Amino acid sequence: MKKVINDPLQVVPDMFKGMSIAHPELECDLETGTVFRRNKSASKVAVITGGGSGHEPAHGGYVGEGMLDAAVAGNVFASPSADKIYKAMLKISAGRGIVQIIKNYSGDVMNFGMAKDLAELDGIRVEQIIVKDDVATVDDDYTSGRRGIAGTVFIHKIVGAAAESGKDLDEVVRIGRRAVEGMRSVGFALTPCSLPAADSANFRLGDEEFEFGLGIHGEPGIERMPMKSAAELAALSVGRILEDRPYAGKRTAVLINGLGSTPLMEQYIFLAEVDAVLRREGIAAERWYVGNYLTSFEMGGISTTLLEVDDELLGLLDYPCLTPAWKSISK
Amino acid sequence: MKKVINDPLQVVPDMFKGMSIAHPELECDLETGTVFRRNKSASKVAVITGGGSGHEPAHGGYVGEGMLDAAVAGNVFASPSADKIYKAMLKISAGRGIVQIIKNYSGDVMNFGMAKDLAELDGIRVEQIIVKDDVATVDDDYTSGRRGIAGTVFIHKIVGAAAESGKDLDEVVRIGRRAVEGMRSVGFALTPCSLPAADSANFRLGDEEFEFGLGIHGEPGIERMPMKSAAELAALSVGRILEDRPYAGKRTAVLINGLGSTPLMEQYIFLAEVDAVLRREGIAAERWYVGNYLTSFEMGGISTTLLEVDDELLGLLDYPCLTPAWKSISK
Repeated sequence: MKKVINDPLQVVPDMFKGMSIAHPELECDLETGTVFRRNKSASKVAVITGGGSGHEPAHGGYVGEGMLDAAVAGNVFASPSADKIYKAMLKISAGRGIVQIIKNYSGDVMNFGMAKDLAELDGIRVEQIIVKDDVATVDDDYTSGRRGIAGTVFIHKIVGAAAESGKDLDEVVRIGRRAVEGMRSVGFALTPCSLPAADSANFRLGDEEFEFGLGIHGEPGIERMPMKSAAELAALSVGRILEDRPYAGKRTAVLINGLGSTPLMEQYIFLAEVDAVLRREGIAAERWYVGNYLTSFEMGGISTTLLEVDDELLGLLDYPCLTPAWKSISK
Repeated sequence: MKKVINDPLQVVPDMFKGMSIAHPELECDLETGTVFRRNKSASKVAVITGGGSGHEPAHGGYVGEGMLDAAVAGNVFASPSADKIYKAMLKISAGRGIVQIIKNYSGDVMNFGMAKDLAELDGIRVEQIIVKDDVATVDDDYTSGRRGIAGTVFIHKIVGAAAESGKDLDEVVRIGRRAVEGMRSVGFALTPCSLPAADSANFRLGDEEFEFGLGIHGEPGIERMPMKSAAELAALSVGRILEDRPYAGKRTAVLINGLGSTPLMEQYIFLAEVDAVLRREGIAAERWYVGNYLTSFEMGGISTTLLEVDDELLGLLDYPCLTPAWKSISK
């Protein structure tokens, strides 16, 4: 697989070198793979996230005013170590507690958990928000539950805005957990991605089929099916979400997320079809977001996220922020 | 080729349907494929651009406060008609003249030229800025000259900001032409794209080769070569630009543009290597931009643009703007 890299084993530090040049407003620690916000307000709840690399612009691209204070990256598709997370937490701690935003994968949950324990020994109050939006995976007592996928970026935005606006730890966590509760996603993949150090794609799909519910690391989905139209893919995606959680009569924000190589043209075409399904189902979409928010290298496909909103959550989605990958301007 | 579409012949109107839903702050005319800015200031020089579809977010994604007043899209990789351009010009004309930003392709130059003639018959003053940044094509008396590629987005930003800040037509055009004069780009492709109505990719590349200088519509480049490292690709790209125009000792803004499917991780890795080359060559990069600014569907590859800047041009790059694909915030 052709890639614009130097050394397959150095892609993560090499990427952070580029990020540090492109975004002087961020502090990139190449050694630990951590992106920090510069010039944060002196006294606010600190917000940290992290996870494996390969999902850019997530998560380093969401560090900055109004969103994250730090994002800790692991190696490709691998959780960052507890030690790195803990060190980043010490650096961003500003006396009002820390919120960890964690995608629900066992490695991330374990490492962020250990980092939380370490920070608490230092007397820092730490709360966790576990994001589990992917309805392609079940959430019951016997499994680790739904995975966290692109909806995580909504949680970065909402929690980051709540913290930036001066709310205390309990309030920030209450809002973040409420947002997670009302959020569901599902994706589909048309083409695989390949990891920099691998010789081949991380899965295979036929020329005329796609996989519904495939995870952002190539985890098996729900079903392989013959390729469908944008309208059919939208009905399938929204339908699956509604099986898991009803949104009829609700106000929502919707994220149409490109997984990597799917052109923006196709994302817009798909968005129009999702809108048509939502209208038929009596669901009000009050905000739309479209683009490559959380990717899986050059995987082809799109995920759909529905977030139930009210005036409080809309206000936080609209709250000014200034990061490489999400800029929101007060008007 | 699997695509998230409904009808290959309707991808352009279907895309604009999605854009109109996603961006209520824009007015999308589905019939003519034109995106207009709403609520523009009453009296300013109007700025219009356009070109074939398939390069999203260019150009509709750059319509809005501080950038374009209108972007007219043709069908896939096809120039919009003179009639559509003319109608859009009538709509955005606000009494202070119109600037057309045109990528240097014969179809675009012809159709924008005819639209200019028509508008002038109506007594509207119209000036053209022809963007020709691609050093993979020669610029001499015998050809139509260098093509316009991703650097066009720099011109949208600079001309849009100059117009927004109230400058008159002559001044806006002077600044825009000066920016074009000091701008050069070159790209390379690793993988082809496929057009929605085509059965196969628009060109072929081997598993271990890339094409240097390939155009954004798959036009032949300078040379096919065995795949190289990011460092070598950066040296090749910057080297070719410097053969065409010296930048040593100059201040520059640099755009690292993903052509479609190349992950942001690789764009950052490439950016760091371009930075290393520029430092060796004594070229100061004062602003960096990275991401998918002007694409070619899902083509794999990256283009590099160097723009010579001074305080005036930097001020216009930094000038506040609010569009789907470029947001700049005054701090």
